[in-house]
Amino acid sequence: MGDLPADEFRRLLHEVADWVADYREGIEGRRVVPEGGPGEIAAALPAAPPEAAEPMDEILRDFDRVVMPGIVHWGHPNFLGYFATTTTAPGILGEMLAAALNVSAMTWQTSPAATELEAVVLNWVRQMLGLPAEFQGVVYDTASVAVIHALAAAREELGLDVRREGLAGRASVPALTLYASDQAHSSLEKAAITLGVGEANVRRVASDDEYRMSVGALRRAVETDVRAGHRPLAVVATVGTTSATSVDPVEEIAGVCREHGLWLHVDAAYGGAMALLEEGRHVMRGVELADSVVFNPHKWLYVPLDFSTLYVRRPEALRRVFSLVPEYLRGDAERAGDAVPNYMDYGIQLGRRFRALKAWFVIRAFGREGLTARVRESCRLARLVAEWVEADGRFELLAPVVMGVVCFRARLPPGGDVSDEGLDELNERLLARVNATGAVYLTHTRLRGRLALRIAVGNVLTRERNLTHAWELVRLQLSALLSSEGAAR
Amino acid sequence: MGDLPADEFRRLLHEVADWVADYREGIEGRRVVPEGGPGEIAAALPAAPPEAAEPMDEILRDFDRVVMPGIVHWGHPNFLGYFATTTTAPGILGEMLAAALNVSAMTWQTSPAATELEAVVLNWVRQMLGLPAEFQGVVYDTASVAVIHALAAAREELGLDVRREGLAGRASVPALTLYASDQAHSSLEKAAITLGVGEANVRRVASDDEYRMSVGALRRAVETDVRAGHRPLAVVATVGTTSATSVDPVEEIAGVCREHGLWLHVDAAYGGAMALLEEGRHVMRGVELADSVVFNPHKWLYVPLDFSTLYVRRPEALRRVFSLVPEYLRGDAERAGDAVPNYMDYGIQLGRRFRALKAWFVIRAFGREGLTARVRESCRLARLVAEWVEADGRFELLAPVVMGVVCFRARLPPGGDVSDEGLDELNERLLARVNATGAVYLTHTRLRGRLALRIAVGNVLTRERNLTHAWELVRLQLSALLSSEGAAR
Repeated sequence: MGDLPADEFRRLLHEVADWVADYREGIEGRRVVPEGGPGEIAAALPAAPPEAAEPMDEILRDFDRVVMPGIVHWGHPNFLGYFATTTTAPGILGEMLAAALNVSAMTWQTSPAATELEAVVLNWVRQMLGLPAEFQGVVYDTASVAVIHALAAAREELGLDVRREGLAGRASVPALTLYASDQAHSSLEKAAITLGVGEANVRRVASDDEYRMSVGALRRAVETDVRAGHRPLAVVATVGTTSATSVDPVEEIAGVCREHGLWLHVDAAYGGAMALLEEGRHVMRGVELADSVVFNPHKWLYVPLDFSTLYVRRPEALRRVFSLVPEYLRGDAERAGDAVPNYMDYGIQLGRRFRALKAWFVIRAFGREGLTARVRESCRLARLVAEWVEADGRFELLAPVVMGVVCFRARLPPGGDVSDEGLDELNERLLARVNATGAVYLTHTRLRGRLALRIAVGNVLTRERNLTHAWELVRLQLSALLSSEGAAR
Repeated sequence: MGDLPADEFRRLLHEVADWVADYREGIEGRRVVPEGGPGEIAAALPAAPPEAAEPMDEILRDFDRVVMPGIVHWGHPNFLGYFATTTTAPGILGEMLAAALNVSAMTWQTSPAATELEAVVLNWVRQMLGLPAEFQGVVYDTASVAVIHALAAAREELGLDVRREGLAGRASVPALTLYASDQAHSSLEKAAITLGVGEANVRRVASDDEYRMSVGALRRAVETDVRAGHRPLAVVATVGTTSATSVDPVEEIAGVCREHGLWLHVDAAYGGAMALLEEGRHVMRGVELADSVVFNPHKWLYVPLDFSTLYVRRPEALRRVFSLVPEYLRGDAERAGDAVPNYMDYGIQLGRRFRALKAWFVIRAFGREGLTARVRESCRLARLVAEWVEADGRFELLAPVVMGVVCFRARLPPGGDVSDEGLDELNERLLARVNATGAVYLTHTRLRGRLALRIAVGNVLTRERNLTHAWELVRLQLSALLSSEGAAR
């Protein structure tokens, strides 16, 4: 009455191994996104759990029959949406082994190897980011969780004993305020909500022409809040914003933070990978002045979801908020001594997957050189797309290309007198047509109120020909759209 | 310059498939816990990331050489620590495929299959828990994250506009208080810290002789706080506490919550699996009255880490706190319509692994019958161990055996006049000796101040003979300990 019989499990492992190999090998032959509408997959499955055991072969057949047709192929070389995060062969192998081991890296004692490998990998990634040695890392699932931890540490550093006494019902605790550019990630609002800071106390500071936080506007916002009796808590500066991968002037922002005693958190979840490039490192200028930095190797460092790293300059600040050792883990916690961390002391989560393994595989299998070459190639391809956009009078760039993302729109008729609303609508229709082909997948964003199409290059499988093909498709679909509209008029 | 060559990846997948099969097949031949001290693994690895790519074969050799000797084998049938969480063959296969697909289930649009399968699996698990249909679920990584979401919803339901305005600097917001028994999980304090409620505002309510929350003490605590001008926020009742798997009187607690307008969160992270058993279902009495319920299939339902389910009676309460759609996901979010959820609306995390797949595999491969039989067998084995403890005058049970956990201690000399401190020390030494053999792994806890050894049965591979062996070892080590101490005197 245990698990599957050993020989059956072995057979299935090999079958799934071939499935995975076939999938990766043939991925380019698939539609990027599925065609079905909401609810179709759920409708194809029983509403109640099965009473009796079902053969694994049948379950795998249903996986192919019901699940696969509803998959968006994030690993497809023509998937150019969001940040084009990508899994890789070494990462998949790492996840296989981690699932088989199924250890929980709560304390050193509960899994010395998972804890120590996490420390080693975090140290490697820190070096690749160019952060000084005093920064100590911890792995979380997502940057959204990481920023909550960073800001909880910031909140504790106020010296108001928030950990113990909380924020509510205390005359001595003023409203706390947070700052980020109008381009920053919405995880900041979710953190403000969670931490009891309040969404309304997040100040979205204006950004400049290139979508970088205006330091003057930041300073004025902080000063206004100070005058109003609020207590400015932290600034989130972004290296690689979600829409246009713009880079805030971190060094100057750090100056404002120092002046006013604010915690500086840098969101380099995507952009941190640029630190690998000699020619890209400048985006990290000033990050060494931050109190905390988040970087997601599951975005642009080829590690499968989820793997987010938070680096804190004074790890004690994080530990002071979250260390809380229940009796049944007390002995464990002590056995680690001072040599290695018990990562549960640095976070909310107690159950912690062996995430370091896949990252260790990826970093070693590619080497720093290999990672660098791939990130560099993504940047080259993004610039190439930008050139195509600029060379075609029917299109325009909406933001400088800084990393692996191109924001553009159709602006037809060239020189014509079309309102921004009209262009938004045109571009929305264009996006829908392009994606409906199933041949590529782009997403959109809004920049200064204008709808922008986005091509994100980050997938390790994406080649120049994939982008040639995608661009050709965008152009063809625009022509088709315009001629059908012309015909309709 | 892409990933590994396709044929090499295929070869490695098969190699790792055999590794996993061999590992599961031969796991019983291994030491349960490693022998090395803190820092040894890290010391065996380079301090800097490799410059050049390394062959995957070499990396896998290092995995065997450096990582494996530092692994605690959570899947070992003699691993009887914590809650003896366990992975299974179908779960491992599910994780392999999820890693290869690497989709993010933020919105329906970003992965229809992952979203809809999550809904289907959540509905299945809800039925297995015996929760009414109005409860809607969402999958998080851990119960620690789930309770933060539940209490954030509770906080919002106060009608104080906490999402927008926060808790700080507001004369209209009194201190908020939380309640749980002195046996409840420490994740409540971490939630209180995170949410800005404050650790000091968590009331640990006394429990009775069988470690169940005293409803009278709860009522008095709430009334005291009301009189003091605090605002009682929520009660966390536990079905299956971490130390002794005791069960709070949920129905009576629900009465107090109703009376005072408190949110009731039930932590059935471990104990929820008892709902599968006709003879165990009584532990869930009253849970249908809760506002939220957490259950972790990664604990006692054979799903690999991480997979925690939160069920909320009024899902819109959760959505009102966390729904926040950035522009670049707006179209996606809308395309789901009303038929299916966009799970990002129900939580902090945006990047969400395809966790439903492994759970779907496990539930189907075992069937409700198979899962039930295995949970029942764990309970039977735990009762068997309890009988052995009771039959041996040198030991005593420290708590009733309600689920799969036995808390006991050596109490030698029988009838002798040894202080509790003396017994604590003896049992600590006994635990250290038993675990040092590497043949089994037990953990400890403290009950009414007394050190208790814990045997947790939950691993799908654990058979009666494993427990016979473990118990024999405990007895032998006690004899050896006493005779060596006798000799030392």
